[in-house]
Amino acid sequence: MKLLEDKIRMNGKVLPGGVLKVDSFLNHQIDVSLVDALGKEFYDRFSLYNINKILTIESSGIALACAAARYFGVPVVFAKKGAHKNVGGNVYSCPCFSFTKGVTCDITVSKDYLCEGDKVLIIDDFLANGAAAECLMNILRQAGAELAGIGIAIEKGFQPGGKKLRESGINVQSLAIIESMTDSEVTFRTDD
Amino acid sequence: MKLLEDKIRMNGKVLPGGVLKVDSFLNHQIDVSLVDALGKEFYDRFSLYNINKILTIESSGIALACAAARYFGVPVVFAKKGAHKNVGGNVYSCPCFSFTKGVTCDITVSKDYLCEGDKVLIIDDFLANGAAAECLMNILRQAGAELAGIGIAIEKGFQPGGKKLRESGINVQSLAIIESMTDSEVTFRTDD
Repeated sequence: MKLLEDKIRMNGKVLPGGVLKVDSFLNHQIDVSLVDALGKEFYDRFSLYNINKILTIESSGIALACAAARYFGVPVVFAKKGAHKNVGGNVYSCPCFSFTKGVTCDITVSKDYLCEGDKVLIIDDFLANGAAAECLMNILRQAGAELAGIGIAIEKGFQPGGKKLRESGINVQSLAIIESMTDSEVTFRTDD
Repeated sequence: MKLLEDKIRMNGKVLPGGVLKVDSFLNHQIDVSLVDALGKEFYDRFSLYNINKILTIESSGIALACAAARYFGVPVVFAKKGAHKNVGGNVYSCPCFSFTKGVTCDITVSKDYLCEGDKVLIIDDFLANGAAAECLMNILRQAGAELAGIGIAIEKGFQPGGKKLRESGINVQSLAIIESMTDSEVTFRTDD
């Protein structure tokens, strides 16, 4: 998606250790009109799948998921990281490694908000190794819910998550796929 | 705001320990059309204040802040809890006690996204003792930014945060103020 690729080229920063910093518009400061356009693009790509719920993970996925959900007319559920007094014990849970925090913590979703028969679109800001996506898919399986597809803003195409998910038959739609990145240049996959 | 009060009466649950659980529509599952209406109400109440940025705190404030920001046409900045590899050391920071997690952690905002001259609306889902609001205001002071007001979805009027903030001259607009709550009934303040 050219709009997002241009924004990454203009405002993204490549840090040592394979980190692409997009916190000026996506996951610390949020450019709400950009995020709205990304949400519409997710709708255009998944509108035929009878999705009735969008699942994401706190915190960076929430803005994107809500923007998409407005077009779909469905609720968002965001998975929580770690213990929350308000969630209680009636949860689906899966351990997940957070790249940005450097720790593993339990991801939980209340059993009240995911169930058999739900047709779910997973949305997240980044896809790299696929740890978060695998964890959310694990939670969908626990709930007996159906995965309709995965919508990602930025995929690091040089890490294995996207390839692995697509090879297992999952419809992964990434709005920008980074083929390679150096301090001075981000190169996007063009065959998407 | 009647729409929100009705939703709380219909779908909120009072738990032991003064917890009002609204995670079926506000902070775990998100009713996006409700949140959009709350965002518009914040705009109606603060549209004359030349706000150029909305500040909230992860995670539950993000959806609300983005909904409001769409009406204002301004970016959202969400303060982060704890250490993040991607934020770096160039931050404003303030310790804050989380009621729902039962721990104190540092709240941080990158110095890149708040600065002198910014006129900021703080938005959050809950106001009880005011710890999160005080922390965000502390960060605004560090940045030299101006506080235009505070928009809250649900204020627990029987806890001291709202009174304390208003007495110090801050324009606090809460869309539903709970006067008291029992297992069977939530009573709202009517003079707002």
